[in-house]
Amino acid sequence: MLDQIRRVAGRIRRLEVQGARNVAIAAIKAVEEMVTGTEAKDKRELMEQLSEAREILFSSRETEPLMRNAIRWIMSRVEESGEKEVGQLVESVSSVSHKFLENLQRSKQKIAEIGAKRIRDDSVIFTHCHSSTVTNLLSRAKEEGRSFQVICTESRPVFQGRITVREMLELGLETTLIVDSAARYFMNEADFVFVGADAITSEGNVINKIGTSMIALAAHEARTPFYVVSELLKFDPITMYGDYEKIEERGQSEVWEEAPENLVIRNPAFDVTRRDFIHGIICEEGIISPHSVIEVLNRRYPWIFQ
Amino acid sequence: MLDQIRRVAGRIRRLEVQGARNVAIAAIKAVEEMVTGTEAKDKRELMEQLSEAREILFSSRETEPLMRNAIRWIMSRVEESGEKEVGQLVESVSSVSHKFLENLQRSKQKIAEIGAKRIRDDSVIFTHCHSSTVTNLLSRAKEEGRSFQVICTESRPVFQGRITVREMLELGLETTLIVDSAARYFMNEADFVFVGADAITSEGNVINKIGTSMIALAAHEARTPFYVVSELLKFDPITMYGDYEKIEERGQSEVWEEAPENLVIRNPAFDVTRRDFIHGIICEEGIISPHSVIEVLNRRYPWIFQ
Amino acid sequence: MLDQIRRVAGRIRRLEVQGARNVAIAAIKAVEEMVTGTEAKDKRELMEQLSEAREILFSSRETEPLMRNAIRWIMSRVEESGEKEVGQLVESVSSVSHKFLENLQRSKQKIAEIGAKRIRDDSVIFTHCHSSTVTNLLSRAKEEGRSFQVICTESRPVFQGRITVREMLELGLETTLIVDSAARYFMNEADFVFVGADAITSEGNVINKIGTSMIALAAHEARTPFYVVSELLKFDPITMYGDYEKIEERGQSEVWEEAPENLVIRNPAFDVTRRDFIHGIICEEGIISPHSVIEVLNRRYPWIFQ
Amino acid sequence: MLDQIRRVAGRIRRLEVQGARNVAIAAIKAVEEMVTGTEAKDKRELMEQLSEAREILFSSRETEPLMRNAIRWIMSRVEESGEKEVGQLVESVSSVSHKFLENLQRSKQKIAEIGAKRIRDDSVIFTHCHSSTVTNLLSRAKEEGRSFQVICTESRPVFQGRITVREMLELGLETTLIVDSAARYFMNEADFVFVGADAITSEGNVINKIGTSMIALAAHEARTPFYVVSELLKFDPITMYGDYEKIEERGQSEVWEEAPENLVIRNPAFDVTRRDFIHGIICEEGIISPHSVIEVLNRRYPWIFQ
Amino acid sequence: MLDQIRRVAGRIRRLEVQGARNVAIAAIKAVEEMVTGTEAKDKRELMEQLSEAREILFSSRETEPLMRNAIRWIMSRVEESGEKEVGQLVESVSSVSHKFLENLQRSKQKIAEIGAKRIRDDSVIFTHCHSSTVTNLLSRAKEEGRSFQVICTESRPVFQGRITVREMLELGLETTLIVDSAARYFMNEADFVFVGADAITSEGNVINKIGTSMIALAAHEARTPFYVVSELLKFDPITMYGDYEKIEERGQSEVWEEAPENLVIRNPAFDVTRRDFIHGIICEEGIISPHSVIEVLNRRYPWIFQ
Amino acid sequence: MLDQIRRVAGRIRRLEVQGARNVAIAAIKAVEEMVTGTEAKDKRELMEQLSEAREILFSSRETEPLMRNAIRWIMSRVEESGEKEVGQLVESVSSVSHKFLENLQRSKQKIAEIGAKRIRDDSVIFTHCHSSTVTNLLSRAKEEGRSFQVICTESRPVFQGRITVREMLELGLETTLIVDSAARYFMNEADFVFVGADAITSEGNVINKIGTSMIALAAHEARTPFYVVSELLKFDPITMYGDYEKIEERGQSEVWEEAPENLVIRNPAFDVTRRDFIHGIICEEGIISPHSVIEVLNRRYPWIFQ
Repeated sequence: MLDQIRRVAGRIRRLEVQGARNVAIAAIKAVEEMVTGTEAKDKRELMEQLSEAREILFSSRETEPLMRNAIRWIMSRVEESGEKEVGQLVESVSSVSHKFLENLQRSKQKIAEIGAKRIRDDSVIFTHCHSSTVTNLLSRAKEEGRSFQVICTESRPVFQGRITVREMLELGLETTLIVDSAARYFMNEADFVFVGADAITSEGNVINKIGTSMIALAAHEARTPFYVVSELLKFDPITMYGDYEKIEERGQSEVWEEAPENLVIRNPAFDVTRRDFIHGIICEEGIISPHSVIEVLNRRYPWIFQ
Repeated sequence: MLDQIRRVAGRIRRLEVQGARNVAIAAIKAVEEMVTGTEAKDKRELMEQLSEAREILFSSRETEPLMRNAIRWIMSRVEESGEKEVGQLVESVSSVSHKFLENLQRSKQKIAEIGAKRIRDDSVIFTHCHSSTVTNLLSRAKEEGRSFQVICTESRPVFQGRITVREMLELGLETTLIVDSAARYFMNEADFVFVGADAITSEGNVINKIGTSMIALAAHEARTPFYVVSELLKFDPITMYGDYEKIEERGQSEVWEEAPENLVIRNPAFDVTRRDFIHGIICEEGIISPHSVIEVLNRRYPWIFQ
Repeated sequence: MLDQIRRVAGRIRRLEVQGARNVAIAAIKAVEEMVTGTEAKDKRELMEQLSEAREILFSSRETEPLMRNAIRWIMSRVEESGEKEVGQLVESVSSVSHKFLENLQRSKQKIAEIGAKRIRDDSVIFTHCHSSTVTNLLSRAKEEGRSFQVICTESRPVFQGRITVREMLELGLETTLIVDSAARYFMNEADFVFVGADAITSEGNVINKIGTSMIALAAHEARTPFYVVSELLKFDPITMYGDYEKIEERGQSEVWEEAPENLVIRNPAFDVTRRDFIHGIICEEGIISPHSVIEVLNRRYPWIFQ
Repeated sequence: MLDQIRRVAGRIRRLEVQGARNVAIAAIKAVEEMVTGTEAKDKRELMEQLSEAREILFSSRETEPLMRNAIRWIMSRVEESGEKEVGQLVESVSSVSHKFLENLQRSKQKIAEIGAKRIRDDSVIFTHCHSSTVTNLLSRAKEEGRSFQVICTESRPVFQGRITVREMLELGLETTLIVDSAARYFMNEADFVFVGADAITSEGNVINKIGTSMIALAAHEARTPFYVVSELLKFDPITMYGDYEKIEERGQSEVWEEAPENLVIRNPAFDVTRRDFIHGIICEEGIISPHSVIEVLNRRYPWIFQ
Repeated sequence: MLDQIRRVAGRIRRLEVQGARNVAIAAIKAVEEMVTGTEAKDKRELMEQLSEAREILFSSRETEPLMRNAIRWIMSRVEESGEKEVGQLVESVSSVSHKFLENLQRSKQKIAEIGAKRIRDDSVIFTHCHSSTVTNLLSRAKEEGRSFQVICTESRPVFQGRITVREMLELGLETTLIVDSAARYFMNEADFVFVGADAITSEGNVINKIGTSMIALAAHEARTPFYVVSELLKFDPITMYGDYEKIEERGQSEVWEEAPENLVIRNPAFDVTRRDFIHGIICEEGIISPHSVIEVLNRRYPWIFQ
Repeated sequence: MLDQIRRVAGRIRRLEVQGARNVAIAAIKAVEEMVTGTEAKDKRELMEQLSEAREILFSSRETEPLMRNAIRWIMSRVEESGEKEVGQLVESVSSVSHKFLENLQRSKQKIAEIGAKRIRDDSVIFTHCHSSTVTNLLSRAKEEGRSFQVICTESRPVFQGRITVREMLELGLETTLIVDSAARYFMNEADFVFVGADAITSEGNVINKIGTSMIALAAHEARTPFYVVSELLKFDPITMYGDYEKIEERGQSEVWEEAPENLVIRNPAFDVTRRDFIHGIICEEGIISPHSVIEVLNRRYPWIFQ
């Protein structure tokens, strides 16, 4: 029953599935498939299977708030539905999963639509790393006829900035690439910074690719507005209850393959950007202040706190 | 006569000689050699040859204040000496050159001696890029028996941080390597930042490897003292008279060898760190405030302004 | 039918009606009058007339959030009422309009009552431009027996500060007038800054008379508390969805009647004060943090987001 | 009837009962006792007695938001209950009081549980004055097996820091005591600041023992996270409506018993820490941003605003 | 003898002579004329006449450091000259005066030359009020072929910005005029701020037209470099010895001719810009840090401290 | 011969002589007395005795820059005098010592004269700990007829603020005493902060009584000018050469006499105030920027660097 779940969890663990959105989709599909083939006799049994699946998927990676919130939502919907009959519950999982994916898609479009309005002709946009939510927004602004420039950092150690660069060039945008440590050098030329998010905490801080917090600091120093572009479902409810959003440290070879012996290489994948450096979070709800994020979540996704 | 000068200038231009100190030494030696073989008949002719040599050497690279100051000093000494006879002037060039090199060496030792006192057992030192003045200081502190840690950035695009790392490991110091954009992540753990300088301006600002100013900003934010370790002769007098210390932009292939077409890669080699972020300049004069740098220079090296 | 609406819209456009409150009142009355004389046969027809009226009124000026929210509210109330019969709907428009005006009046009194408590004997209050909400608050504090001073800026280009000055003198308050650029000079003497608002954005920022953001910056530098005094209905919901609150640029002759040819005169009427400079918004809800403004609005005026 | 209430109010006034929690408990118990012995004939009479009791208790000290909120809650529960019969109302007071105390106890445990997660092995925690909510949190972290250090200020004028010191030593923690004005000297060594709260205002500011705001400023300067550890019921609703949270000034002899004549001794017991210096409030709801505190309260304790 | 001195002092007092430079020139010429017609019999008598003249001229306006330094210099030169014979002393006054004026002219040209190098094609320069030293610099940059924009404030209350505007338009520069309180609104678009100085203090602060310090604050917030363009002889030595540079308050009618009774109009002519907001002083010595100004003066104009 | 030196050194060590000025005077007098009774046969022997005396006195306390500079000065004067005969050298020591003391006295008067000019009627002066240089300045201002207020901190752990309080009351000044941690609470009411100095470093920082740096931080936050009032001879030349000005930690019993076992009490006597928080140093030279302190010293007391 859970084999498929374990297979998918394995692929997530080995980074064969990447990107918060793709990970969430893979997990949802695996759950849907599992319940479709279930042999559970009643609701209790089905819920137990779902709990086991959740445990396996949650342990596949340290922090994947979007995927975790997806599973949380499906289970809360099914639990609360009046249904008792297994067949109907299976259908319910299926329809609920579809709803989640649809909602995710709609959020992405809404974010692009809202954020694109901020971009004017001749704007210079600074971005860091690669975020499909950000590039989708920029693509939308371009489609709407605005012509603007993009400055991208290379985003060491794994150069995701190059992915962003290629997408920007394909859109026909004037694109500049810089090394990460040149961010302050070019900050006075930028009109906006737009970055994605890996997770949002209950304090209103944002966890994103290493280097983001230093760019935010430089933007703050230069009075350049700094926006986070992200679905609210990146919120991680465990931060509410005191847990740190754990910062993953990746392998040393990403930084230096043939490093000398005895050298310690520290390779944190993310850092924390304080809410005070963030002008707004551009999300499916609109453009909001990061300081009020838990209340927006309580209003819009109350099940996330259950 | 000037062939040797041109050869050396060529090697400097093609980066076959590197590091402010090495460039200065090569230029001095070339000048010394030139005057040794001079056929000048009188002081006037000799000074003209020196002027031509200066022009060639100055144009070899956009900013090399130490080398330029070396040539300036030799010429001012010779000009001001009462000597008129060519043979004695040649000797004078030679002795003056030796004095300059000796003084440079003494400065380096004095800087190490002074700066090393700031390091205590268990200190954590943060550094950026590679500066032989900084590593010499750290080496001195180690020799004096202190045990401390060093955090090094990799220093994209050409990874000079790896040179620093190797030197630190050879000294037997506990050494950590991080990507440049992780500087803020580790800043709260550092007790001091020590960086070198490529040039010092009349406003008291410091030009150093790209990324330095952002590290200074992060150090300022975390109340971590930030010191520049440099000979005062890195001061560039043209900044006094309104010229910018020109920021060299290096080739795009340093950043990305197989960059897509149409991509603009901006690769400034240096950036400017404001005096307000610098706790002190550790120089041959002692530890001084960057705000008073032109007055210290006027007192110690008045010929630099002639 | 819509003639009266067009007439009022024209008067608003030509600034014959001024002040957010007066504009809202004029628009509401025009709508009320229109429906009183309506020949609509059913609810659908009436709602269409209301939509046309809304369009005309909204286009009369770029940003009048209070007036727009007034029309939004009336229409949402009527739409949601169970009534179907035209006569009753007309009455409903009328009663709903009255309620809005009453509520506006109550808000103003409540704001005065709340804000006046902050003023103590011998307080020095700094204000900018003219805001009837602010002067009403100061008048209340005076009535309650406190004696305090007011510092007013002249508020170029159209000297609205002089209106404030006259009102303050009539209240018998010790009143000082300064030019706008002397704000920082006198800031250390002030105990509080109180300003009005033209619009409030979803990020928690406040749009007010040009110069407000610079006064806020100077207040922040001097640790002088800075309060915005405003009805929450100044919130502009389009900012939620990415639109900028458009900053109106007024005519050049306001600044210099006989300006030389070729001179560009930029005359923005408003600027944006960041939430980080605002100690609190004194509104009908109480004294709130600007960072939480959208949640307060969602709780108190949910229809504004429909 | 009200004698017992007056007795308890007297003990509170004379500081024979101390600590927000103890004061609240004493007041609740007095109310419970009063209604148990009531001779009221109907609900109206009982409510009048409760109102009188409230007035007496509220006037016992200038600011005791927790106690005031306790009384507010009991009265709102009783008022809203459908009960009309006196006997049942008395029981209702009793059960509601128990609920309040239980909830208070649960909050304290939840806060400890949440906050303790932030403490890691080798953390250095800075605290000020004495707060049982903070020491309870630290005790929890110790019980969970973490070993960490605590730096305590002595907290002039009445040296409550010594109470904290004794509790920390009893827990077996490595404990350091410093004078208050050495806070900045040691701030760079601290990983976190944890302080309690006497009151929370509608703007999101926190009122706590004199000196707290200066420690917060020093923590901000050093990028050391600063957390307030407090039940949300310390929120004072009168701040919402413009009243200052009044800062009590205590007797001069606390500062200097044998002060010379003519000397003015100012002895404010508390100061105000701006929300901008507070990383988060660790409360029964989780870790929240101080900027959103009124909305969290509106959601969780709506009766507080009635 | 002193009639001419008194006449000139009167014209200075009544603002018939304006601008630091013009005032200095008028005073020097009056002194020169006075000594030419002197009937003094010996050095002592001549020096007494000069002292009287100094007193009269110094009292003509509260702060005119340039004029005062001119008189100081002439007197110190004459005093120190070995001459004893009156005729030769008169000549000495004359030659010394010419030297001063020549030096002033040279300084102005040197400042223009140095400062103009900072301006690049497409630069946007922000300036405040009218300073002939600044406009001379801009004129030089234009002559050198650079094309750039200038943003001017109107500079209430007497609109000196309009003088700047006319000069800029005559140079053929793209010129924008704004009201003073719009400075922050346009600051992010500026590459540099250039302002003049009325006086420089021993602490390194600069006194200039009211509003300058607020523009400096806004420039600091936006990381826009802020330069003071001024001869070092604007330094006022009395600030060294504790006196404030007195801030002149001008007449109320400058602000509002028909002001209502009882209104207090405060009209300070200048404000103080802290050295921390000043990137550099562009002076005859070069570009220097304001923090080192007294040492530069001690080196270059030691007589100023006598 | 050295017995008297050792006795005095002992009294200094045991704090029987206190205050930088008193310590310097005692040391000078001991040296004078020693040479008066010398049996040295020639200059070499006398200089040796002086060297021994210096060593003993220097080791009496960790940092006493004024005393150390006094001894340095006496020895440099004697060394450089052409005298060779012992009798004349003894006289030279004597006259040089008198000169030093006279100069010290003159400096104190000059500082008072200069600083007093900053105080105006109704000024509120904030001070910390006790500094005779500060109280002398305040006394001067009072004598000159100004009436102003003084706010004093108690200055834990040894309450030197009470000494200041008594002196202020004797002068008839309105005097307020507060606990140290209330500094920020009262900072907005102060017009100036005036503190003394224990030592000045080559970076321009000031070492003074623990708590000074936190007061400076609070003054900076409130835009209240912060002045250090000190003789330049408090400069410690070893800081030039990398040594820290060592911060003395005093005994634990000063903080808590009956402290519980296992408690660590840290009791640093001083802290370091960054030059960036210091508006000016009021010294015998005038009011100077702390950033230029080493150059002022090089000009005025060059022997200090020998």
